[in-house]
Order: sequence, then C-alpha cells, then structure tokens
Amino acid sequence: MAEIPQLSDNKVFMAFTSYATIILLKMMIMSILTGFMRVTKKVFVNPEDALSFGKGENAKKFLRTDDRVERVRRAHLNDIENIVPFFAIGLLYSLSDPDFSTALWHFRIFVASRIYHSIAYLTPLPQPNRGIGFFIGCGVTFSMAFRLLKSTLYL
Amino acid sequence: MAEIPQLSDNKVFMAFTSYATIILLKMMIMSILTGFMRVTKKVFVNPEDALSFGKGENAKKFLRTDDRVERVRRAHLNDIENIVPFFAIGLLYSLSDPDFSTALWHFRIFVASRIYHSIAYLTPLPQPNRGIGFFIGCGVTFSMAFRLLKSTLYL
Amino acid sequence: MAEIPQLSDNKVFMAFTSYATIILLKMMIMSILTGFMRVTKKVFVNPEDALSFGKGENAKKFLRTDDRVERVRRAHLNDIENIVPFFAIGLLYSLSDPDFSTALWHFRIFVASRIYHSIAYLTPLPQPNRGIGFFIGCGVTFSMAFRLLKSTLYL
Repeated sequence: MAEIPQLSDNKVFMAFTSYATIILLKMMIMSILTGFMRVTKKVFVNPEDALSFGKGENAKKFLRTDDRVERVRRAHLNDIENIVPFFAIGLLYSLSDPDFSTALWHFRIFVASRIYHSIAYLTPLPQPNRGIGFFIGCGVTFSMAFRLLKSTLYL
Repeated sequence: MAEIPQLSDNKVFMAFTSYATIILLKMMIMSILTGFMRVTKKVFVNPEDALSFGKGENAKKFLRTDDRVERVRRAHLNDIENIVPFFAIGLLYSLSDPDFSTALWHFRIFVASRIYHSIAYLTPLPQPNRGIGFFIGCGVTFSMAFRLLKSTLYL
Repeated sequence: MAEIPQLSDNKVFMAFTSYATIILLKMMIMSILTGFMRVTKKVFVNPEDALSFGKGENAKKFLRTDDRVERVRRAHLNDIENIVPFFAIGLLYSLSDPDFSTALWHFRIFVASRIYHSIAYLTPLPQPNRGIGFFIGCGVTFSMAFRLLKSTLYL
C-alpha cells in the first residue's frame, strides 16, 4: 500500500469507479428486466401483483412460474454472487496501490466476462459459453484477492 | 473519528456512513425476521432444524413452505438486490465530491423508499405501493451512477 | 475527492482488508462448490447444462433438484445475506478510527463464526451449531453498526 494523497489522483481507483459502476448498473438492469418480463408475460408470485391484471379467480391464474422469468432470475442471482465479491475485493485491491495497467486489465476482463455470461445465460448459448464467462470472472476476482493477501496480509 | 481528518471532514462520506448503516441494519433485520417466523410458525427447510421441535415423523411435518415465510424471504432478497448496489455505487459517489445537499437527499429518499417497500411487501399493501418504493429506490441509485459516469469516466 | 493520506498507515483498514478478503474468498468457494456438485451429481436446472451429459430424453432426466446441492445453495445464500453486510458495515467501521484491538477481535470472531456456520451447514451438524454461528456473526456486524451510529450519526 502506498500514499494516496487524493483519491481523484489515484488512477486505479478512478478506473475501478467507472468499471464497477458499469457492471453494477448491468446487474440492476437484470432486476428491472425480471419485473418487465413478469408484467408482459403476466407471471406473478405475489397475489397483490396479479390483482392488477384480473379479479378473483381470474387473477389466480397469473400466480405461476415461467421458464423465461426463472432464467432471468437465475442470471440475476449469479450476477449478485459474482459481481458483489468483485466489487468488495476490487475496491480493497484498488486501494492497495497495484500496477495501473494490470489493474485496468483485471477490470476490463471482468466486465467483459460478466456481460458475456449474461448474453450466454439469456440467449441461451450452448455450454460451455456461460461456464467460460463464469470462470473468467471468478479468475479475475481470485487474482485480485491473492494479490491482496500476498501484499497486505495482516492478521 | 480522529486520525483520518480528511474522511471525517468529508460531510458527504459521514452522511453516507449513517444512512448506509441504517438501511443495512434494516436489511439484516429481514434475516432475523425470517428465522423468527420459521421458529414461531414451525416451518423449516433443513431436517436438523425441524428436529428441535419433534422427533421422527413428527419432525418431518415441519419441513414445508409457508406463504408468510416466503413473503419475508422475497422481501429480504429484494433488499439484497437493491440495497447492495446502493451501497456500492453510493460509496463511490460519496468519494467523488458531490454537492452535499444533493447527496443528502439521495440518501434520505433511498432509505425512505426501501422502508416503504418493506412495509408494502410485508403488510401487504395493494400495488402499486410496493412498485413505487422499488422504482424510487432504483431511481436514486441510477442517478448516483449516472453522476459518477459523467464526472469520472475513465476506461 | 476526499483526501486519504495513507491508508497503508491505517492498521485497522489493513487488518480489515485481510479478513474481508479471506471471508469473501470462502463465500466464492461456495459458488464453485455448487457448480462442482451439479456436475459430479448430474443435477441441473438449465437444459443447456444437462445437454453436456446426454441428448434428448437422456438429458431431461438430469433436470432435477437434489438435497445436497440445495443445501450448498442455501449455505451460499446465507453467506451472501451475512458476509455482504459485514463487508459494507465493516468497511465504514474500519474508516471510523475504532480501537485497533477491538476491531481485530470483531474481524476474527466474524470470520471464525462464518467458517463454523458453513461447516455446521454442510456436514450437517445438529442444531443449535449452525444457529450459534449465524447469531455470533450477526452480533459482530450489529456491534460495528451500533458503534458507527453512536460515533458518526449525521442525518
């Protein structure tokens, strides 16, 4: 770890801010997409949601599950499982004074791998497309974590 | 706060700390609430949990799902999907030197919208109450994200 | 931007970086473990995954749920519900100039309690082993949150 006179002078932190914001926005869009598909396909889990589309017995038929909606939900959950650790470890990594170019490539590869993962999940593309996206993303986060533990282990 | 004068002089960061802590505590309370409802309603998913309330066949009847418990779980999951991105983007936003009053209103509106969302989910209130809480919360996070990308884009 | 002259002189932040990285890695390993169990037990939820292990009707029989896989998934989800708030509140706490020794014990107890929770969930150990791990972890996070609210409340 080195001196960080101003966070705005910290190029790694600035780059992290941009990439993290982009991939977190992508994650939130999965949430909006789930809601959008529930409304357009009329597939609900809460009775009060179905009531907007019919009354009584008519509303109950919208309380169901749908393969497409479940797929978006699984893609969203996988994002949470992977993008949140990336953010947490990436933030600590950004503040540990890593090499700028190395850091930049970590962020770029992660963002690309997760966008590819979502495309592979939602299309869906045949395996191992989605698996490759998943493992590259994990690899980037593990790489930053190992760098952190190597350089700053303090227990 | 003492030895980090720069962060403790950062009013936006101090306000973010308070609001983020409050809404994260609210999220954790959903977790405690789920456990509390599982025990009081005797609704379990793990056999070892049900065993505390009966033996053999008697325990098996507690392995079931319950609408009220599932509702709390969905409210909790929705909190994770929204409060975690708020924390991540809000933290970066707090460190990007935004206008203090603007930042404060972002935090206040987000916290209020998520508390309203939980009340609407758990009561449950008729739609669009819950939907309004959800979209206002998303709007706050998107607004901070766009501000970040506009002011600090560095790819 | 906030000035943070030397994060590397902040012993609490350094310790937080190490403990947070370790417990986030543990959380990510649950994700890898779920995937590993899906492949070895041939239990899939996506048709394109099952296709790697058989064609047509032969593939469909792998689209099922399995108690062991669901148990790992629940342990993983519980990690997300608890480790993410620990990271968020712990990060803010680390930057609020707490007593070093007090902070260190918060981090140590949390990491130990979550590792114990995972062992109790996956073995599975009889209750209240898992419950104890869960509540100790919550207690640590609540303790840091209350300290933050007491020392920095700024609404």
